[in-house]
Amino acid sequence: MDTKNNNSADLLINDLLPTHPRRLYDPVEYIMAQKGKKIRFNLALKGCELFSGSSDDAMQAAMAVEIFHNFTLIHDDIMDNAKTRRNQPTIHEKWDINTGILSGDVMMILAYEALLKAPEHAHAKIFPLFTRSARAVCEGQQMDMDFESLPVVQIDKYLEMITKKTGVLIAAALGMGAACGGATDAEVEHLYEYGKNLGISFQIRDDILDCYGETQKIGKIKAGDIIQGKKTILYIRTWFSMPEEEQDGFTELYHSSAPDKIDTILNYFEKAGAKEYALAKEQEYFEKAHAALAKIDVSPQRKKKLTDYTQSIFRREH
Amino acid sequence: MDTKNNNSADLLINDLLPTHPRRLYDPVEYIMAQKGKKIRFNLALKGCELFSGSSDDAMQAAMAVEIFHNFTLIHDDIMDNAKTRRNQPTIHEKWDINTGILSGDVMMILAYEALLKAPEHAHAKIFPLFTRSARAVCEGQQMDMDFESLPVVQIDKYLEMITKKTGVLIAAALGMGAACGGATDAEVEHLYEYGKNLGISFQIRDDILDCYGETQKIGKIKAGDIIQGKKTILYIRTWFSMPEEEQDGFTELYHSSAPDKIDTILNYFEKAGAKEYALAKEQEYFEKAHAALAKIDVSPQRKKKLTDYTQSIFRREH
Repeated sequence: MDTKNNNSADLLINDLLPTHPRRLYDPVEYIMAQKGKKIRFNLALKGCELFSGSSDDAMQAAMAVEIFHNFTLIHDDIMDNAKTRRNQPTIHEKWDINTGILSGDVMMILAYEALLKAPEHAHAKIFPLFTRSARAVCEGQQMDMDFESLPVVQIDKYLEMITKKTGVLIAAALGMGAACGGATDAEVEHLYEYGKNLGISFQIRDDILDCYGETQKIGKIKAGDIIQGKKTILYIRTWFSMPEEEQDGFTELYHSSAPDKIDTILNYFEKAGAKEYALAKEQEYFEKAHAALAKIDVSPQRKKKLTDYTQSIFRREH
Repeated sequence: MDTKNNNSADLLINDLLPTHPRRLYDPVEYIMAQKGKKIRFNLALKGCELFSGSSDDAMQAAMAVEIFHNFTLIHDDIMDNAKTRRNQPTIHEKWDINTGILSGDVMMILAYEALLKAPEHAHAKIFPLFTRSARAVCEGQQMDMDFESLPVVQIDKYLEMITKKTGVLIAAALGMGAACGGATDAEVEHLYEYGKNLGISFQIRDDILDCYGETQKIGKIKAGDIIQGKKTILYIRTWFSMPEEEQDGFTELYHSSAPDKIDTILNYFEKAGAKEYALAKEQEYFEKAHAALAKIDVSPQRKKKLTDYTQSIFRREH
């Protein structure tokens, strides 16, 4: 990871945080100090560098998107009743639910305070971009929760959900960075599209890796999604590929804790060619991302600095 | 109430709300459609009229502050475990806590979407004003929750809490309206000060009325604050006025359900001159409000339109 940039994030949050009430701001400090990849923060800086050659002007916008992302984690963890995050107790576990709700709320406002400190020339671009992206993230979270109570969802709804829940904030980070670096409206939009499609492709890859990745590399239980009955692209593709009379039984098994569940489900996936379908979709969005990037007219050297970073983050083996 | 303005609020929220996911936006429609006084909405319109003679340019800023206020109600109701609001089930009761959290979150973003639609000439004023006020509201809510576990708080902390929890959003509504109406920075600040001090004076009056108002007029149980052991200005003043050795017993009684509690507490209040102290404070902030208004150079007719409205809302008999 880029230590310099992460340290900048630590310094910036201290500038933004008032001293009291402690109970409101301690949880903000706690979550922002956690060791994380700070992907969105770094993407905003890279988006700026692509156009201006320096990341300086994007510091506050980077901070805004990182604070917003962490706010969503706090509220998501309450909604999912999660006990730990990044190997540490979640905020509602360490403090309580009310603290998690209110500290999360104030972080959304702190994100806007950071935006207000961004270069004024970029305000007219970054405020609408951030705001529409933030709303999409809430919509994505709601869709994800809605999906839990359904047997299956259409593939286009699944893609809309991951676009909103993951894609748009990555897109916003890059787009806001670009705007701070002096990009035109069209350039901001191209970089936004690049980030959005990269995010979608990354999320699809995540579904694939959970089933077919090597356990050590992904650092979690193999087929955790199957164990939990999560509606991945593999599950959805398989469901729609099978004869109608088999769908109910498949859904029931997928949400059960039958002893031979994983192997049986993997057989279903194979019969449906779900992995190949998912890999093709992943590739499709990866190519869309690069088609958007190709529309931006900057030197190959500058583009390489960006793609080196996104490759290091998003391109994992499988 | 001003029916025309309330109807405008109903129309505007429909313009802002996307159609799906329903589960995210139904609660927003539900709370925004409730019959309420829409004080902050109307104050923003009045703040604009004071300078431009029309409220048209403040519609979106008015909407922003009204949406934000309703967002705080949703999250506060979760934190306070409140079952009803405005004689209807609260959102976490009608749906569930997760729905309340997420619909509240998206409302904060919708407030910014409304601001983005406000006249561009006002953006540089209203975005910082709204953002710093929104943060203060969160701080006020946290202070209020912190106070619950303390035997007493200093009067200046109490005043800071009510300023942040009530004063600043009234102030922001007026200030943002003024900015949309073309007011200068100084004029915005004066109207902000007017609203803030009016809000503080109103909150103090609320404490007084709960004890000394006529039941029918205030429409709630007399001395409800005493019954609930709420830390009002009357309680705080009395606590600090009594000999140290009596304070623990007084605090214990105030938080008890002793049968003669109300009468005994009222006796304590009388001995301390708490009502007179509170009335003097109320007057002090009322005068501060009007001193700020006096600094604004507009016609007496225009000022009267504003003060007629604020009198009708904030000046209740006691």
